[in-house]
Order: sequence, then C-alpha cells, then structure tokens
Amino acid sequence: MCGIVGYIGEKDVTDILISGLKRLEYRGYDSAGVAVYDGENINVVKTKGRLSVLEEKVMDTPLKGKVGIGHTRWATHGEPSDINAHPHLNKDGSLAVVHNGIIENYLELKNWLKGLGYEFISDTDTEVISHLLDYYYEGDVLQAVLKLVSRIEGSYALGVLSKNEPDKIVAVRKDSPLIVGLGEGENLIASDIPALLPYTRNVVIMADRDIAVLTKDRVTFYDYYGREIEKPVTHIDWDISAAEKGGYRHFMLKEINEQPRAIRDTLRGRITEDGFHLDDISLDEGYIKGLKSIQIVACGTAYHAGLVAKEFYERYIKIPTVTDIASEFRYRDPLVDKNVLTIVISQSGETADTIAAIREAKSKGSKVFAITNVLGSTVARESDYVLYTWAGPEIAVASTKAYITQLAALYMLGGYIGLKRGTLDMKFVRELQAELTAIPDKVQKILDEQDRIQRIADEHYNVKDVFYLGRGLDYAVSMEGSLKLKEVSYIHSEAYPAGELKHGTLALVEDGTLIIAVATQKALYEKTLSNIEETKTRGGYIITVTKGDNEIFNDASDEMIMLPTASDYIMPIITVVPLQLLAYYMAVARGCDVDKPRNLAKSVTVE
Amino acid sequence: MCGIVGYIGEKDVTDILISGLKRLEYRGYDSAGVAVYDGENINVVKTKGRLSVLEEKVMDTPLKGKVGIGHTRWATHGEPSDINAHPHLNKDGSLAVVHNGIIENYLELKNWLKGLGYEFISDTDTEVISHLLDYYYEGDVLQAVLKLVSRIEGSYALGVLSKNEPDKIVAVRKDSPLIVGLGEGENLIASDIPALLPYTRNVVIMADRDIAVLTKDRVTFYDYYGREIEKPVTHIDWDISAAEKGGYRHFMLKEINEQPRAIRDTLRGRITEDGFHLDDISLDEGYIKGLKSIQIVACGTAYHAGLVAKEFYERYIKIPTVTDIASEFRYRDPLVDKNVLTIVISQSGETADTIAAIREAKSKGSKVFAITNVLGSTVARESDYVLYTWAGPEIAVASTKAYITQLAALYMLGGYIGLKRGTLDMKFVRELQAELTAIPDKVQKILDEQDRIQRIADEHYNVKDVFYLGRGLDYAVSMEGSLKLKEVSYIHSEAYPAGELKHGTLALVEDGTLIIAVATQKALYEKTLSNIEETKTRGGYIITVTKGDNEIFNDASDEMIMLPTASDYIMPIITVVPLQLLAYYMAVARGCDVDKPRNLAKSVTVE
Repeated sequence: MCGIVGYIGEKDVTDILISGLKRLEYRGYDSAGVAVYDGENINVVKTKGRLSVLEEKVMDTPLKGKVGIGHTRWATHGEPSDINAHPHLNKDGSLAVVHNGIIENYLELKNWLKGLGYEFISDTDTEVISHLLDYYYEGDVLQAVLKLVSRIEGSYALGVLSKNEPDKIVAVRKDSPLIVGLGEGENLIASDIPALLPYTRNVVIMADRDIAVLTKDRVTFYDYYGREIEKPVTHIDWDISAAEKGGYRHFMLKEINEQPRAIRDTLRGRITEDGFHLDDISLDEGYIKGLKSIQIVACGTAYHAGLVAKEFYERYIKIPTVTDIASEFRYRDPLVDKNVLTIVISQSGETADTIAAIREAKSKGSKVFAITNVLGSTVARESDYVLYTWAGPEIAVASTKAYITQLAALYMLGGYIGLKRGTLDMKFVRELQAELTAIPDKVQKILDEQDRIQRIADEHYNVKDVFYLGRGLDYAVSMEGSLKLKEVSYIHSEAYPAGELKHGTLALVEDGTLIIAVATQKALYEKTLSNIEETKTRGGYIITVTKGDNEIFNDASDEMIMLPTASDYIMPIITVVPLQLLAYYMAVARGCDVDKPRNLAKSVTVE
Repeated sequence: MCGIVGYIGEKDVTDILISGLKRLEYRGYDSAGVAVYDGENINVVKTKGRLSVLEEKVMDTPLKGKVGIGHTRWATHGEPSDINAHPHLNKDGSLAVVHNGIIENYLELKNWLKGLGYEFISDTDTEVISHLLDYYYEGDVLQAVLKLVSRIEGSYALGVLSKNEPDKIVAVRKDSPLIVGLGEGENLIASDIPALLPYTRNVVIMADRDIAVLTKDRVTFYDYYGREIEKPVTHIDWDISAAEKGGYRHFMLKEINEQPRAIRDTLRGRITEDGFHLDDISLDEGYIKGLKSIQIVACGTAYHAGLVAKEFYERYIKIPTVTDIASEFRYRDPLVDKNVLTIVISQSGETADTIAAIREAKSKGSKVFAITNVLGSTVARESDYVLYTWAGPEIAVASTKAYITQLAALYMLGGYIGLKRGTLDMKFVRELQAELTAIPDKVQKILDEQDRIQRIADEHYNVKDVFYLGRGLDYAVSMEGSLKLKEVSYIHSEAYPAGELKHGTLALVEDGTLIIAVATQKALYEKTLSNIEETKTRGGYIITVTKGDNEIFNDASDEMIMLPTASDYIMPIITVVPLQLLAYYMAVARGCDVDKPRNLAKSVTVE
C-alpha cells in the first residue's frame, strides 16, 4: 500500500514527481523518496516522514533532471526509516526501483542473493528487486524486468529507471494498481489517476501482468513473454477540484457533510416505477429464484455495510446471507458455487483481499456482483456485475460517504432481488423507495445539528475505552461507529451485541466507562433497555442513540441523541451519521491527525 | 442471574440459608439477604456485598426461626445496595419474596401499582412482585401467586413466604432454574443442586410454569391453573467435594489443570471402530444427507467454541455452517427449517438466550442438538438430542474446561456427521480419532511447563490493551483467548482476524502495545507473518503462539510460545490452553478476584 509515480519528458522532473506523490499521499505517508537521472548518474533523495519532509530535503539538495521515479510509502516490511524508504538502488547505483506491494518469497530470494554476494542495507522486501534486476541486467532493462517477474511472487507495481538507458522508464504491475498517463512529449506512470490529471487526461489502465516501456514520445506495452500488445486509451473527465477540502477543516468532515449529495447521486435514476433499475445490469429471474444463498465479502468499513445487508436480506428478502471478512473468506475454501451470488464491496476497488476473494468465488462458479466507488478499478473489472456508488473521491482514510452509499446500493440491490425472487411485494418496495428517497433530508437534519454532537465529544474525548451496544441492525451499525472512533481517535472502542456483553466484556465496565447504546429497532427496545441498565448499574455513562419519537430510554441514559424517524429496517443509514460525527469531533478534540490516522492508509492493496 | 434458597423444617433456618447461598454464590454475589419467620413476624437482614458481609450482619442481629428464604444477587435493575438486595417485602411486612430473573413489564406494573397507592422503595423490578402479591392476597398465598403469574411477563424463579401462613413456602419458576429438595421432616428450594446436597439427594427438577407448595412434611406441585400435578423425583449421586478447589489457589487454575481429565472423560466410550458413538443418539442417514446447513447458536465462550466448529465443519465436512450469538439469533427471524440442524452449546444449560434460541429453532421445524455440561438442565430437556460434556462442575466464572470439552464434542459430532454424509472417509476419521485421543497428553505437556507462561504474564501484566491476531481457526481460538483475558484481568483486549487489522484497528498499535499472534495453520504462516511485521513495525511487542516445529516467526517475535504439534485442524484444542494460562496469570499478577470477576456471574439466566 504505497504510491508510485514516474515521469519522462522535457520538464523539471523533481517538482512533477513530488506534486504527483502529494495526490497519492492517501495511499501511505510514512516515508517518501525520488530518484532522478541528472544526465550522468541517478541521484536519490529519500526520507522518513511525510512528503513535506522530502520537499524540504529536496530544496536543500536540488535534483536536476528530466526523467525520474518517486514513491510514498506505507510500511509493511521494515519500519519507516530513511534507509527503508524507496527508491531502492542496486550496488553501483545504476538501477533504481519503486515498488507498491509485497514480495512474498523475498526471504528465499534474499538468502539466494546473499549467497551470490549481494549485500542488503534495508529491511524491505523491495531490495531483492533492485538486486535481482542487477543480477539479470545485461544491457536491456526490459529483458531484466521480464526475468525478474518470473522469479518474484506476490503483488507489485514497479517503476524502474536505468542509468544506462536513461531514455526510458519500465513499469509493470501484478495485483497492485498502475496507470500510464499519455502526454505531449512526456509520459507518466502513477498508482492512481489524480496524480496524472495536471499533465494529461488520456490514460491507459494497466491490467495484471502488463509491462509498459515509456519514452518521452511513446509508450509501448508488452506481456510477460515480451510480446508487444495493444492497450485501449481511456479519457478521464473528472474535475480535480472535487478532491479538495472545500472549506472544511478536514476531508473527513467534508465527506461526512457531502453524504446527502452522495446518497442522492447513488439513488439517481435507479428508483423506477416498477422497482429498481441497476444501470445496465440485468439478472435473470430464473437465476435469482434459483439462488440458495448470498455471500457478501469485504474488508473494514465495507464489511460493516455487508453486515447491515445481511440483516436486511435475511429478514426481508428471506434469502440466507453470510457476510465474511475477505482475508478470512479467501483462505477458508468457502462453500460457494453457481447457486450462490457473491457480493463484494470495496470503496477503492483495489482492496487486495477483496480482489482475491473475487477470484476465489469465480473459480468455484459463483457470479460476483461488485459494489465499488472507483470506475475501472480492479474489483470493477474482474466482477461479473458492477454497481457503482457515486460518492465521489474519498480522501480521508476513515470512510464515511462511501459506507453510506454502499448501504444505499445494498438496499436497492436487496429490493431488486426481492422483487425478482417474489419475496417482496410492490407495497413494500414502494415503501422502501420512499424511505430511501427521504434519507438525504434526514441526514441533512442531523448535519444541521452537529454542534450538539461536538459538545458531547468535547465533554468525553478524554476517555480510555468506549463500548458500543446494539442488537440486530443496531449492532451492525455500532460496529461501524466503533471502527470510526478507533481509526481517527485511537481510543480503544469495541462494539458488542447488547445481549452478549454480560458473557464477559461487562467485566470491563467501571465508574465512568462510556457506553454508546444504539437502539432504533422498536421490537428490541425493552431488551436493550435491560442491557443499558446492566451497564448503568456498574457505573457506565450512557449515551443512547435512538429515534426521536420515544422516551423509554430517558431515565436510563445520561445523554440522548435523537434521530429522525424512519422504518426500522432503514435506520442504519441514518444512525451512522451521528456516530461518524462523534468519532470525528472526539478525534479533533484529542488533536489527532484526522485525515491521515497513524499506521493506516486509504486503499489497502496488500493482504 | 441470582441464586435463591428456601427452607422449612425443624432446624435453625438462618445457617441453612446462608450455607445454601454460599454454594450458589457463583450465580451472583453483589448483595445478599435472608427473610426468616420468628414465630410472630418476618425478619429480614440484607446487605450490599458478598455473602461474608451478610454473615457478619446476621451474627450481629441473630435471626431465629425454622422457615425462611434467601437470595444472592447479580444486579440487573438497580445498582447493588442494601435496599435493592432481596428479599423484598410488601408494605406491612407480611409477605417476603426472593426472585431470580427479570420482570419485563415491570415499568407498566409499577405505574399501575403507584396509581393504587403503593410506594416503591427500591429500584428493582422485583418489588412489583411483593406489592402485586399484597394486592392479590386474600388469605391464601398459593391463590395470590396464581394471580401474580398471570400478570407478570419475563423470567422468574420465586420463593414466597407469608407471615399469615408460616407453615409453607410457595415457589414457582418460568425461564429461570429452580430445584426442590425433599428431606425428612424438612423441605428446601434452591436455584441449583449443590445447595441442596447437604440435606438431601432426592430432588424434583421443576419445569417451566410449575408451582410448588412446601410444608415441612410435604411438597405439593401445581400447574398455572392451580391443578395438582405429579413430578418425578431424581436421585443425585454427585460427590460434592468434586466442586472444591483441591489445593489450587483458584477454581480457574484448578479447572485449567483438570482439562486433560475432562477431555478424556468427554471422549470416553465415544470413539469406536466404525466412527463415533454419541451415547444413545442416532441421527438418520437420510436426514443428515438432506441437511442443507448447520446453525450453531451459543453465547460467550460457547459461541467461540461454535466459531471453531464452523471452520472445521465447512472445510472438512463440507456443510455450510453459520455460528450465531444467541441473543442476536432469536430476534433475527432466522432462516432455519427442517433441513437445518441447530446445534446449541451451553455449559450450564440454563443460558436464557440459548434456551430462547432452542424454542425459536424448534418453532421453525429445525431439530436441536444440544452440547451441555449439566444433566437435566433446561437446554438438555428442551433439545431433541443432547451430547454431554463431562467436564464436571465448573465453578470459576471464566469458563475453561467447559470450552475445551465443547470443542471435543463438536469435533466428534463433525466426524459423526461427515461419515454419515459421506464427506469424510474412514482414513480421515481414523486420523481425527487419533488426534483427539492424543490431546490430553499434549495439553498436559503445556500444563507441565506453565511456569514459563507465568513468567511472561508477570512481565506484561501491566499493559493497557492487548490485541490477539490470527487467521481462520487461529482467529476463532484467539477470540476465546481475548475473552478470557477480559473476563479475569479487566484488560481491554480484542481479537482480530490478522488480515483485517490494517482496515482500522492498526491505528491503536503504538510503542509497546502487546500483540498475541496465534499462528498454527501452516498454509497461513506467511500471510500471518506479514501481519505480525505490520504491527512490529509500529512498535508492537509480539508474543507468537505457534507449533513447536517451525522457526519462521522467531525473528519477528519478541517471545515465542511453542505448542505440541498436531494436525492443523485440531490445533484450537491445544492452542487455547496457554491463552487460558496467560489470562489467569496476568489476572493474578494484577490482584484480580479471578474466580469471581466483577460484574459477571456464572450462569446467565437473564437476557
């Protein structure tokens, strides 16, 4: 999970590399570096820390040149340090490489290379690549890369620069994203499109095992056998300013506040007279009726969206649904087959474990339905069907608008399946449509009153532990509320099914422990009230999040957050908003770097 | 989740009540009290705190009498206090009641009674019972109880004493356990059998909605219509000393050390030439072949045993398996039917949510297979099939030997089902049998070397947070390891699928954070190693628990716990032992009350 860039052309390359890395910083930011060819040698500047540290270092040691590669890192092997930062060089400094991914057989290769006399100075897996390239290099860097990729296992997007062939950059990818930007008299590579947009809107989205050789005037593509291949060019018409903060203090707050718009966009054109129109997707009625179950697979926040869907699908669509964590699913030898629809959810569409899950499900004959936010992403390309969430670029590491639009997409998909399966009638579907359509205004109402949540956060930000309680759908959304708090505030919080707390975790509740009780499901009010009282009795400070039309929690709660009312089943899309705001404001009160939490990166392209 | 006792006879009642309560203290211990009729009035002594506090208070204020009731409490409504302790009286003190359970409609009843002029002095739900009895009492306490039970909803085991009818105790139960002991010239009630054993071995296990009227010479049983009914008498041949600490400092340590014996007892007679002989259970081959899935339902530690079984059943038995938390399952309108086998797991057999889950599953046509440790428990009685774990009485609140025997039972059941379903061949079954048979010696080997784990615990007991990491079966057993630590040491620990950590929780890892990495599944070694390195890079202190035959984790770990080797699939039964010991020794080092953790009770008979 790192970002790589590369440029070859006529301009001053260092500025271009650094400005490109800035747009990729969401992919990792614990160290960074650039390698530039100055007409004679490859010069490297790299450093632990954010890109701003690199920028200062480059001001002290200017790098002149017109071809170079750069990297912003999220450590997996070897702690963040100057030495572990990329680019990495071979012994004589004639070859430089930047790498995003994990080389799984690096230990074996390292031992082999050591036996050949190669010395390792970093703790990274990447250094085996620079030495392997050295070993294979016989005057043609493309040939060396072809031999390299036959030896390494794992995931990688690589940019390679050779002092002996300074008129080219060689790039290759497998299981990590890489895009080529086609300019006028200049060409670029980058891990993601925004880094390319200042220079070109014409890009080639590289597929797995594509190799690209960039010169300033031309880009040639090859396969792993070294045969030249043709790649289609995509024109990007995004507005780059859509990824700016727009007046908010943090991207996270901006993105929370964008949610009414994001939901509207995601619903637009998909709610119709006769049900749900899911773009150009048409699932055969016989196929849907024949499904014995649904398997949802995702990671992190997207997994939590899948937990909400499971509750909704089982209770209302009456189809058995299992929601799994992708990193678990893929190694479980899961029991999916052609009668199981696999739904994968990934904001970035590049989540490595989710991509592996797609392949696992497909290999067993299951059709894969993707919900993703990124057009042309690997998840989108590899799945049988894709429903996009139109949340727009999400920059903050902690996902907010992606989650809420994933929920909207999952509810629509549920309605679509329920209608075809005959388990939902039009009366329910009309109500579901009306509930979905009403969500943006209800979310807006919560946003308009966020001062109150900020006040609660300001009073409690200093806690050591937080427990979220809920039952059923309230538990599912509590999981997401708890994750948000962990991610941005570093408070150890945990969500628990309210009825399960007393089977152990209640031992942790003591005087002043903060309890966030989520109770929006009418049939479970009394049960949850009993659990709230169990924690109150032990000294817990209770903040109850419930619908605005009931008072049964007033006595047992120290603080109430009242939500706009809606049907029980749709409540998670509303309930999550104050939980996001609470996490955000607590993190701000604690002085945390909200948009870039320590240790985390936006798009998890390693396992 | 409380314990109640009652005695009527010729002996000094107070001593009998208190010694009975001592044997029930595992059911709750935040306050206690007794009510005794002295020939003229009912006198009550009750107090916040352990039974020892009540004992002192009774020494100061001797209570003379030959009939009385007593209670040891685990608070659900109203904090532990003298006033909230039981017994509760009506206004003029002529009626006393002890209650185990939760009255769900107590708020409604309380308002109604207040309207009639009744004054409430406690915060308990139980006080509505004493006032309702007062309202209905017209000279016959049985008649008043019959009217009472038609008004109250929820769960209860009640003992009622009336000053105007001092020759009897009336008892009734619904969804909370109650046993009648039949003596010579004396009769007793208690929530569990051990409290009765000093006086009699002849007991009547009351069923739901049974009412008992005890005089000193006779016990008469009635149904809710007041019709007399006959109840069978059970003779108990347990040895009460089996429930003593036997030289260990704590019951928990004793029970951890009993595990080799407990597994041997659970396996005994069940491993045969042609597979597994599950007592008198015979599941039809056609039924087993027709099963479309297995639904496991349990709470707490038993739920974690179910998570291990899910992994084993899906991968090896090839049957889709869902493991649910009982308090979630019962309100989910779950999609079970006659082609789904429901497996419930409960040490005590009295877990309220699990009992409700049995009823829910049966109402939908599913057969219920119970794994429980208590003969004649509600779970055993209400299920279609019962396989007992022969762990013996488990006194420590934190379950250890029950878990390990639940695993043994689940593996045997898996083998039994796999053979009948044709998804396991005899070669695998022979191996499974051999693996199971070898477990006790392997567990013993770990126990013999527990000094080392104590040393690790002594070095790290002061941590604030602990994260357990694992994948697949290692994740399932990590959940249990984490729960043990929480329960007894009050350290906020959490288990995470190793591959999921980076999707948020990694933000909590900082310098010195304690990481317990569990890695016993060969195919996942390298993946888990990558995740260990992610946490190490952020400063985590890594204790890796792995098989004794590999060294790949040595460099990345600060401390290693090496396990006896066995087939991957059976490892959880071995792996859990050092995790139990680590939790125990850390709690001891922290000075915690290991056997009776704060806020928890042994048998969770409320929701």
